[in-house]
Amino acid sequence: MSSNPTACLLVIGNEVLSGRTQDLNIKFLATGLGSIGIPLREVRVIPDVPEVIISTVNEVRAKYDHVFTTGGIGPTHDDITSECISAAFGVPWEPHPEAWARLERRYEPGEFNAARQRMATMPRGAALIDNPVSIAPGFTMGNVHVMAGVPRVMQAMWACLAPSLAGGPPIVMAAVHARGLAEGRIAEGLGAIQARYPEIDLGSYPFYRTEGSGVALVAKGNDRAAVEAVIAEVTAMIVDLGATPIQGEPAI
Amino acid sequence: MSSNPTACLLVIGNEVLSGRTQDLNIKFLATGLGSIGIPLREVRVIPDVPEVIISTVNEVRAKYDHVFTTGGIGPTHDDITSECISAAFGVPWEPHPEAWARLERRYEPGEFNAARQRMATMPRGAALIDNPVSIAPGFTMGNVHVMAGVPRVMQAMWACLAPSLAGGPPIVMAAVHARGLAEGRIAEGLGAIQARYPEIDLGSYPFYRTEGSGVALVAKGNDRAAVEAVIAEVTAMIVDLGATPIQGEPAI
Repeated sequence: MSSNPTACLLVIGNEVLSGRTQDLNIKFLATGLGSIGIPLREVRVIPDVPEVIISTVNEVRAKYDHVFTTGGIGPTHDDITSECISAAFGVPWEPHPEAWARLERRYEPGEFNAARQRMATMPRGAALIDNPVSIAPGFTMGNVHVMAGVPRVMQAMWACLAPSLAGGPPIVMAAVHARGLAEGRIAEGLGAIQARYPEIDLGSYPFYRTEGSGVALVAKGNDRAAVEAVIAEVTAMIVDLGATPIQGEPAI
Repeated sequence: MSSNPTACLLVIGNEVLSGRTQDLNIKFLATGLGSIGIPLREVRVIPDVPEVIISTVNEVRAKYDHVFTTGGIGPTHDDITSECISAAFGVPWEPHPEAWARLERRYEPGEFNAARQRMATMPRGAALIDNPVSIAPGFTMGNVHVMAGVPRVMQAMWACLAPSLAGGPPIVMAAVHARGLAEGRIAEGLGAIQARYPEIDLGSYPFYRTEGSGVALVAKGNDRAAVEAVIAEVTAMIVDLGATPIQGEPAI
């Protein structure tokens, strides 16, 4: 997967760090990014603290091809992502005419107040990311894509943004699972298979369920033939150990 | 909350970054840490890549009072957290006598193989974290607490570890929600309340549900009286705006 562009996700929000909110954006974006060949390499969950947001954005935008942020673009005092992106890029934070026009149309006369106008205030040079759910747009600034934190709004923005991203070859994933087989019994054989296919990422994930425990073996990579060869070898090993391989993964 | 010790969580595992697995450990540990007065300040999700794990551990253990890791301590080739912690601390990775004895007792004669012996191999100086679920222990090395990635195993380890951690004053949280009120209408008043209580963290979180949308307002801090005063002021503002405040939060 070395030829693929890379991505980092910043989840911005005290509500995830306090445990109030169960994050759902990581899995959604990880899956979506993988499907367009831009594997997610790192996620950071950071608080609504300007210095932390600014320094983190500048660190990761230099390190990865794409940075995605979720959270902190609403109208309230704790929504500070947009100002922080301006500060990180060293550009003015100013009304964006198209975002302003969209929001002005959305509200009744007199209701487009100062707080809501903040949602139309963006770093100079920002390109809008459409928001079909609640109008207030996200934006792209350089390689940083700024999206909402509310999952259904973020997902709608992603649907608008994704077609414009130039991905790499898609990442192919295949899996087999072995019920009743412990990781400790297959570890040696798995390690040997991984060593023969260094370009494939072979993961081993135990599961514990009332209907029976076991291990899920997952192979990922750009080369479909190699991914399938790895799963075939793992399957043969499971048979050799007297267990029954089940292609695909059980529902999580 | 400035007097509280701080925590960082490292979620180690390709399965979260690929979108295969929905992380459940962040919310659990964020909640548990808050309840003992060690607020979670940052989370990073990183891949099973030795250089990344080693450099990240060394960066964050210098920055936070406590570092918690989940994932990568099983018997397979992709379980490399323990070796990486040894490398980060610059100490030998060697059999831990007590961990070894526990695992040897767990398996039938001849079944405690080389892969399983890796789970009893730890950085020199590690203190065990008990694992009542599946025996193989986690460990503490300096201010780094190394736990399993499987949620129910991690949760059992946390129950064993938490009483030994010296926390700060617990973080008090209170909430009120306003159904049918948009964030943009309360933003100005909220900002004014936040400005009067700088030591309290006041968050605003819109929700969208079939039975009605609205905003949840959440106050957090060490001082219960100040947290309650903030919620009282927010409640009065909701009433002034003609909406009905509901104490506490709706189920998520």
